[in-house]
Amino acid sequence: MTAPLRIALAGLGTVGAGVIRLLEANGELIAARAGRRLQVTAVCARERNKDRGIDLSPYAWEDDMTALAARDDVDAVVELVGGSDGPALTLARNALSGGKQLVTANKAMIAHHGMELAALAEERGVALKYEAAVAGGIPVIKGLGEGAAANRIERIYGILNGTCNYILSQMESTGADFGDVLKAAQELGYAEADPTFDIEGVDAAHKLSILAALAFGTALDFGAVETSGISRISAADIAQADALGHVIRLVGIADLQEEGGEPRLFQRVQPVLVAKGHPLAAVDGPTNAVVAEGNFVGRLMFEGRGAGDGPTASAVVADLIDIARGNVTAPFSLPVSALQAVAPADPGQRVNRAYIRFSVADRPGVLAEISAAMRDAGVSIESLIQQGHPDDGSGDPVLVAMVTHDGPESAISSAVELLDGSPSLIEPPLVMRLLA
Amino acid sequence: MTAPLRIALAGLGTVGAGVIRLLEANGELIAARAGRRLQVTAVCARERNKDRGIDLSPYAWEDDMTALAARDDVDAVVELVGGSDGPALTLARNALSGGKQLVTANKAMIAHHGMELAALAEERGVALKYEAAVAGGIPVIKGLGEGAAANRIERIYGILNGTCNYILSQMESTGADFGDVLKAAQELGYAEADPTFDIEGVDAAHKLSILAALAFGTALDFGAVETSGISRISAADIAQADALGHVIRLVGIADLQEEGGEPRLFQRVQPVLVAKGHPLAAVDGPTNAVVAEGNFVGRLMFEGRGAGDGPTASAVVADLIDIARGNVTAPFSLPVSALQAVAPADPGQRVNRAYIRFSVADRPGVLAEISAAMRDAGVSIESLIQQGHPDDGSGDPVLVAMVTHDGPESAISSAVELLDGSPSLIEPPLVMRLLA
Repeated sequence: MTAPLRIALAGLGTVGAGVIRLLEANGELIAARAGRRLQVTAVCARERNKDRGIDLSPYAWEDDMTALAARDDVDAVVELVGGSDGPALTLARNALSGGKQLVTANKAMIAHHGMELAALAEERGVALKYEAAVAGGIPVIKGLGEGAAANRIERIYGILNGTCNYILSQMESTGADFGDVLKAAQELGYAEADPTFDIEGVDAAHKLSILAALAFGTALDFGAVETSGISRISAADIAQADALGHVIRLVGIADLQEEGGEPRLFQRVQPVLVAKGHPLAAVDGPTNAVVAEGNFVGRLMFEGRGAGDGPTASAVVADLIDIARGNVTAPFSLPVSALQAVAPADPGQRVNRAYIRFSVADRPGVLAEISAAMRDAGVSIESLIQQGHPDDGSGDPVLVAMVTHDGPESAISSAVELLDGSPSLIEPPLVMRLLA
Repeated sequence: MTAPLRIALAGLGTVGAGVIRLLEANGELIAARAGRRLQVTAVCARERNKDRGIDLSPYAWEDDMTALAARDDVDAVVELVGGSDGPALTLARNALSGGKQLVTANKAMIAHHGMELAALAEERGVALKYEAAVAGGIPVIKGLGEGAAANRIERIYGILNGTCNYILSQMESTGADFGDVLKAAQELGYAEADPTFDIEGVDAAHKLSILAALAFGTALDFGAVETSGISRISAADIAQADALGHVIRLVGIADLQEEGGEPRLFQRVQPVLVAKGHPLAAVDGPTNAVVAEGNFVGRLMFEGRGAGDGPTASAVVADLIDIARGNVTAPFSLPVSALQAVAPADPGQRVNRAYIRFSVADRPGVLAEISAAMRDAGVSIESLIQQGHPDDGSGDPVLVAMVTHDGPESAISSAVELLDGSPSLIEPPLVMRLLA
């Protein structure tokens, strides 16, 4: 058997401790599969003496991550520190520059600095692997970059944030409103104390930008991801979607569209209505799922647990096994120089059906005003549901929800603009698309 | 860029032609991803002049597969001839012995001779890859052998035959009986003229035995797969399952169980009742799906098209890209010498809920007879549905369907034995398990 792969682990939170537990539990099996042992030689974290339920005595301790990355007895560095910049990025740069293989679970860092790090890895001839950064334990980076490598990928989309999916599924099954479900999710540990990155779609946007680069061979462009979250979705929206045969899911979608003969990269994270017969509609709770559509393979779906110490550790160690086996692919499947910078798409020309929900004042003429705006903007309405009576004189806000026929997104934007500032609307309309 | 990977293609049926079309359509992209061109140099098939819709003039023609495998201008041989033995096996042996990389879509050959071929590949230091042999375009061999490699796999199961899944989904949506749906499927090309291998579960059993070896590190043991097909399933069974909140799917299941402290390999292909909330219940039509349960990653599911020229070609070319990149893993993830021969499990001790359907004669005392047999065998009945009236004197056969509580399979077998030869039963009872 070859010499062990010697590993330095930076960050000993739940995932770092999970990696150590996994290597202890499955070490023999992993050594047999990898053809050599995976041996942690050194670790580093902020606090040395915290109780993590694991014995750190077999591993050298470093207080300083720069020293960790520079150790002679380390072949591969695992970065589990987190944060797009700061210490994590410094460590990643140091490790790669020093000729160490790098494995990371850090989606924010890859989304912001993946191109720079990939170029550095390529220059030094070492691996940059990040399976754990997207969709937790699901081997979707491998599935796309290797399993589907024979295909031109036409579209990629999926449920990329377990917190949002848990909240939406709970709203669905309990009928409760967003705020109550979020609070319960926080108590259960399914949502962070500050849930902004999750519920506003930023976390999903990090992952989507990575998937898009890998799928389309385009330069990473996190800044161009159009992002909206789930905090405005109400129990009434869930109920309306249900009545229409749909569920609501936060979905990241990316594709390449053509504008004037030039490719344009479309990247969006948004809540969408998913027909109940679609495979994504069955994805409940904190599960993640990614769908890739290839020009020969058709529709592929990868589903599993998108977070948690076990699944994330599984993905980190899978990357280490690949490195130990010598199976290393370019980080984004192509050489960095081949990743094409593509301008963001103009979503206005995209054609789809939309769900638009208005909260309107209880007064006469509101429906006529909304209908006129739709007509003037050229939006064709397929169905309209109204909850409560706008003209009943009670003064309570009333919900008007409609589904449009297929039409360009620009028409909907125009309609919304026409209604901007109308005293009839209690809040701006909520627009969601139906997943095609 | 490195020298091209030179490929010989044996077999030019729909999949072989698909591989050529794929390499033509996506050749530039594949070369960029693989770091070198994938170049077909020679081909071989039974008939040279058949119209396949592709231009064969760029490729050298060989009438003889032995000559094909021996060519100096070939690095990798793609075997798409089919059949577990005969010419396909001879070609595979010749190619590997001659130091060529081998890619195959041949599930029957791998199920029967995978160990021998893997040993030969290991000895010659070449690849044996067979992603296309299991679940068509879905990268499940890669997903298990690499993506989930950090895990002890506890169970693997899935929908492995698209023909059966299409037939069962059609029975579900139309209410038609097996024979009629099969005939329609044959007309549409979803089922072969001789559908035996598909509908009797043999094709799924080939795939299951391969997945089991890969997942558990056990020696391939196709002969030990307990197999039953779908031809006895009636429209009434589908309706009963529906009333119970289930759908019927042909599922292959494998796990390692312990008997007297020794591991035993359980492998079974059978129609099972799948609760409508389970991800496999949403898998409709000719789609395949494979679920793997790992001790750290939890439940992973891979879903996509299980057959057809495009998906199968996608898997074949993914294997070729891996070879071109130099990313080659042991065929069954472990060295052949580490694959452990494990005796088949005794299913009698397995505990699960069962659906049992009787077609009984229309005469008095039948229900009492069945109930007595269940009681005497220790089978506890959870619910019982009877369709038609056994005592109404019409003489028509009557359906009695029951679902048992959790209990050992041996008890059900005893009950069925007690009823064996009873003049009350028009045919032997149909026993299906509920997927847990």
